[in-house]
Amino acid sequence: MATHLETLETPVPIVDLDRLSHNLDQMAAYATLHGLRLRPHVKTHKATRIATEQLQRGAVGLTCATTHELDVMSSVCDDLLLAYPPVGAARLERIMRLSANTRLTVAVDSADSLPALAMAAKLARRDLNVYVEVDLGMRRVGVKPAQEAVDLARAVLEQSPLRFAGIMFYPGHVRESVTEQGASIAKLSADIEELLERLADMGMSAAQVSGGSTPLAWRIHEVAGVTEVRPGTYVYNDRTTAGIGACDWVDCAFTVLATVVSTAVPGQAVIDAGTKALGREPLRSEGDGWAALLDRPEVVVTRMSEEHGVLDLRNTDWRPRVGDRVRLVPNHVCIVTHLFDEIVGVRGDYVETSWPVEARGRGVVQRERDQAPRGPRAM
Amino acid sequence: MATHLETLETPVPIVDLDRLSHNLDQMAAYATLHGLRLRPHVKTHKATRIATEQLQRGAVGLTCATTHELDVMSSVCDDLLLAYPPVGAARLERIMRLSANTRLTVAVDSADSLPALAMAAKLARRDLNVYVEVDLGMRRVGVKPAQEAVDLARAVLEQSPLRFAGIMFYPGHVRESVTEQGASIAKLSADIEELLERLADMGMSAAQVSGGSTPLAWRIHEVAGVTEVRPGTYVYNDRTTAGIGACDWVDCAFTVLATVVSTAVPGQAVIDAGTKALGREPLRSEGDGWAALLDRPEVVVTRMSEEHGVLDLRNTDWRPRVGDRVRLVPNHVCIVTHLFDEIVGVRGDYVETSWPVEARGRGVVQRERDQAPRGPRAM
Repeated sequence: MATHLETLETPVPIVDLDRLSHNLDQMAAYATLHGLRLRPHVKTHKATRIATEQLQRGAVGLTCATTHELDVMSSVCDDLLLAYPPVGAARLERIMRLSANTRLTVAVDSADSLPALAMAAKLARRDLNVYVEVDLGMRRVGVKPAQEAVDLARAVLEQSPLRFAGIMFYPGHVRESVTEQGASIAKLSADIEELLERLADMGMSAAQVSGGSTPLAWRIHEVAGVTEVRPGTYVYNDRTTAGIGACDWVDCAFTVLATVVSTAVPGQAVIDAGTKALGREPLRSEGDGWAALLDRPEVVVTRMSEEHGVLDLRNTDWRPRVGDRVRLVPNHVCIVTHLFDEIVGVRGDYVETSWPVEARGRGVVQRERDQAPRGPRAM
Repeated sequence: MATHLETLETPVPIVDLDRLSHNLDQMAAYATLHGLRLRPHVKTHKATRIATEQLQRGAVGLTCATTHELDVMSSVCDDLLLAYPPVGAARLERIMRLSANTRLTVAVDSADSLPALAMAAKLARRDLNVYVEVDLGMRRVGVKPAQEAVDLARAVLEQSPLRFAGIMFYPGHVRESVTEQGASIAKLSADIEELLERLADMGMSAAQVSGGSTPLAWRIHEVAGVTEVRPGTYVYNDRTTAGIGACDWVDCAFTVLATVVSTAVPGQAVIDAGTKALGREPLRSEGDGWAALLDRPEVVVTRMSEEHGVLDLRNTDWRPRVGDRVRLVPNHVCIVTHLFDEIVGVRGDYVETSWPVEARGRGVVQRERDQAPRGPRAM
């Protein structure tokens, strides 16, 4: 009595379970092959169901960006990395409320943030591992290598109960095709080697060198010194990942199922997936449009409103009718999961399961505070 | 014992309650002044709290784009318009499940969609009002005026129990500043007048002529024949609305409160609001960036990752420190409310209330089906 895809109300996010398993297996095998610690970023799926699959395949822990992700993932994992600056009283408070059984690591890029962090850890009676985040070209967060990073590592060591646990970088600026990443890899390696030497000169050692990103995931073992990887997108993949060659098109496990709702305007078909179902993320590889059809990648969404997507039909003989179903591969899947509360898992054309996107959103902080004042700060 | 804004965990969406009331009052007064039926679009707020305020100020009903919006809003309003093609078995089924007390109108742009719509209404034993959607330049959905629209109106009349209730258009293509909309208004008026005449020639009359959009909201009374308006954004307003002069900057009631989390990279400050808190919507007026500071509109978010926003500091003397709070006016607020589950209402710098964004997302269709099979379609 399986439910056919055709019966689902659209728009709805669909994950092909066979492709998902394949993607999970591939990354686990890659990490094992090269002796890398795999610490997947949960931002892509935000679901304990997928996190559990990652852990069962040997992931050493999980990477989170938000406190809500930490909260949710602490129910299935006792080794979490907050790859985000632990700044702000409310954020620190929420971090420290995590179960005492959770081994917690945070990434910092500012000496100014250390005293409050150390005090919060002390009051919560918890050890805290700290990665020093270095900027190796992304120009987002992170201190410059090598001197600034060495200084920050020393500052961490001076702040009990913080523990200097390694260095971290995010190579999100490396967006070349997989085959063209050689120069970027050489540059990353040079920066890291210099930093590790300088740390050694000062009597410090980075227990971990944590790198990440799915685009670079399959070549990260070539970067000198890397011990840990934090890919996120690989579980589902998307149009950008395929476009740069970090996966094949058939590895795109995640699509948005949509319905053609209008063909009234000539030369186009309107589907019921717009910005509120697909996001509005640029394609980071060759091509244009906001999403492409799984079965006809040459047909793309060229315009969107909140609940409308416009398929350009000028370069195809395909002429959909009102009511037809299509499956769309989004440019950037991490944004799309954040738009939905539930994902439907399919095997072929039939629904097999579904799971909640528990770490979507922020958690209901304000109402919680209204109901349960927590001392002076809640007033 | 009020909670100060400073204590909230960020990123968090904040609504200034005084500004919200002002915006609600202004639009209600405008509609009254010109004898227009105000049927606000709920896509902007997706909250029964705000919908109730709109109804208390004289709105005749509400406009929805999704079935989940219909479901949620039917709890506070008995006159709903689905301004979206009622296409697809699952969508029709959900529409027809609405309480029989709900007076329902749907917009159609395809004769092909009428038989299933009429059959669904008949089986549900409900009357259904139908607007014929015309495309007056938006090129999204809608049939061409006048002949196609007249033909479609006649097709509606032939499908019992459907009732031809009027024509509808969405002037979303009119994006000029409010003072420069004269030519667009003349063009809309000419198209509508011709269509109404052609309908009259065929012995039909459009009980309502429903127009919409916040950019044109304050001049929609100048468009010939319009009886009903469907603005959405005006409750909160945003950077685009202010940019085209459809509101003043001080009427921007909605901001995202964020924290500066890094100043490690020179020339910029990184905040904890990125694409997953601000969306990635282009500014539809003069200027660039993805959001601007409420108190310093010249400082804008120039780059974003999922949880990072980069404030460009090159054109300002302002030098924020890690931990500082900022409030951001997004380019397009309707996308931002869709990212959060709860909105915090503030009076000045203090939290007064909060409300859920109940109509965010899609409702939990799949799990509902799993648990309660509904005849042959759920199998």
